[in-house]
Amino acid sequence: MNDEFEWIKSITPNNAYQKELIAGIGDDAALWSADENMDQVVCVDTMVEGVHFTRDTLSPYQAGFKALAVNVSDIAAMGGIPQFYLVSIAISREWDEEELQEIYQGMGDLAKNYKMDLIGGDTVSTKGPLVLTVTVIGKVEKGRSLLRSNAKSGDSVFLTGNTGESAAGLHVLLEKTRHAVFTNIEETWIQQHQMPVPHVEQGRILAFSGFRISLNDVSDGIASELNEIAEASHVKIHIQKDKLPVSSSLSELPVDDRLNHQLFGGEDYVLVGTVSKGDFTKLASMFKKRSLPLYEIGEVGEAGSPEVYLHSDKVEKPERLTKKGFNHFRER
Amino acid sequence: MNDEFEWIKSITPNNAYQKELIAGIGDDAALWSADENMDQVVCVDTMVEGVHFTRDTLSPYQAGFKALAVNVSDIAAMGGIPQFYLVSIAISREWDEEELQEIYQGMGDLAKNYKMDLIGGDTVSTKGPLVLTVTVIGKVEKGRSLLRSNAKSGDSVFLTGNTGESAAGLHVLLEKTRHAVFTNIEETWIQQHQMPVPHVEQGRILAFSGFRISLNDVSDGIASELNEIAEASHVKIHIQKDKLPVSSSLSELPVDDRLNHQLFGGEDYVLVGTVSKGDFTKLASMFKKRSLPLYEIGEVGEAGSPEVYLHSDKVEKPERLTKKGFNHFRER
Repeated sequence: MNDEFEWIKSITPNNAYQKELIAGIGDDAALWSADENMDQVVCVDTMVEGVHFTRDTLSPYQAGFKALAVNVSDIAAMGGIPQFYLVSIAISREWDEEELQEIYQGMGDLAKNYKMDLIGGDTVSTKGPLVLTVTVIGKVEKGRSLLRSNAKSGDSVFLTGNTGESAAGLHVLLEKTRHAVFTNIEETWIQQHQMPVPHVEQGRILAFSGFRISLNDVSDGIASELNEIAEASHVKIHIQKDKLPVSSSLSELPVDDRLNHQLFGGEDYVLVGTVSKGDFTKLASMFKKRSLPLYEIGEVGEAGSPEVYLHSDKVEKPERLTKKGFNHFRER
Repeated sequence: MNDEFEWIKSITPNNAYQKELIAGIGDDAALWSADENMDQVVCVDTMVEGVHFTRDTLSPYQAGFKALAVNVSDIAAMGGIPQFYLVSIAISREWDEEELQEIYQGMGDLAKNYKMDLIGGDTVSTKGPLVLTVTVIGKVEKGRSLLRSNAKSGDSVFLTGNTGESAAGLHVLLEKTRHAVFTNIEETWIQQHQMPVPHVEQGRILAFSGFRISLNDVSDGIASELNEIAEASHVKIHIQKDKLPVSSSLSELPVDDRLNHQLFGGEDYVLVGTVSKGDFTKLASMFKKRSLPLYEIGEVGEAGSPEVYLHSDKVEKPERLTKKGFNHFRER
């Protein structure tokens, strides 16, 4: 009633359903039929202009793409199949109709890859920054076992892709804005930051394996995600500096910068987890058959107070990794 | 990474799960097992500070309560059972920890009435107004038939409660703010605006009846909701001024003000719909058994271009009702 939809209603989105949604006509509850052998999965994530992105770091299209991608990544971390999404946008007059349409386009293009349907949403006005909330619903076979509390002593720690490029990309974007001219290497980094591809296929292989696996997607950095697994499983986790996969684009950075991006950068949206040593070998060959990498980066230590350590051949004492960074203070 | 969660993490919410959510620990995808004989229902709605409410119209507790209520009402309009909810809050430093906790408390207290569980969410910071997005998941028996496109000529038009009090309440709140002293009548209105009770039980009776029913919840006003039914069903709808239920609290307002609130005010969250005349009588007795009112306010006219009319015994020519108000212009 005291809302200001009018300017939004004149948009011409890609299809009639989106148009209904944006016009607030079709924004009721949506229905779907659940699959008997599957559990339902749902997650929600919000991206805020000025906090998670700015007009200088992401285009409207990329903001849409990424908002959906981070949610799909949560489904991937459950080994699930993403099926539906709902979009709530609080948007100010500083964003024009074309930009709003681009946001939907970005989501729509990612959604196509997974045959996901947009089944609901809400578009409201705000006087503040853009707030983009995406809900994703999916399904996963009943009895799947990808819990963070699944890690056990002796497990291999694995990673489904390299990390750090997204953080390097953000660093460049904050310095130069997305309108600058970039080197090829910078383009690679920026692409990872702006349009991360969630590891759905990798998650499906892990779920299908039936192995006992602990799993997280890397949204806040490997160090943070491994600390979460250590906490949920009450174990210590040891990773090897030399085993961390290094993308060629990052290899020329000073080692400390690179490691910082790899361990703490975040927004990588690869999967990190643990599995027994024997099963790791089997998983690695399943991944190889599909031309997907799977890196072993360390192992789970004894049970006890949750701690994550980085080991290096060159340094005798391992470094404690907290969620936010190295913790030299507590160690000394 | 470039987020500012820290001040939020120190909150002590009501239960461990909420605490995990707020701390961003448990904010992954949540799982549930779907019921074989039921379809799943989902909806999402967003409330923005300064647009849908202000600190002067709703307390934090009420903002939480209402944000969940409007979503539960969408489920009620499908005849469904609400089961789960997810909460995404974008919040600035202008809101303190106690207020954030009150928002969750308001949702939690409404959720208890329906035995709904909080299963996920995201709490992020913003420099702008509070944006509160709630996703509700529910279920409804397969084959339910409460579609807006179900209205047919000759149907009775019904309403599950009276309307207008919420709009009268908002009027008072905008004038005096919620911190003022109110008359008993004003208190009644304000209560309807601040803490609307969704008509879930009424929706369940309608779904269980198995009758062909068109249905909408009254979020934007009767006139708007009936126009939506007229559009979806390609019919004309006629309602009678004298049949509109008038709450005693509104009866002393000038007639024009009262009618304006009743027809166009919105945020009433009762249900409005149509059903065949014979089935209306059966429905009315089902409602009566449960001590719930069911008002017949008009009937569906001939098929054709969607139009809604208000008839009055005192005036020969009916008045055309558009979504936003009376449309004298087009009629003359």
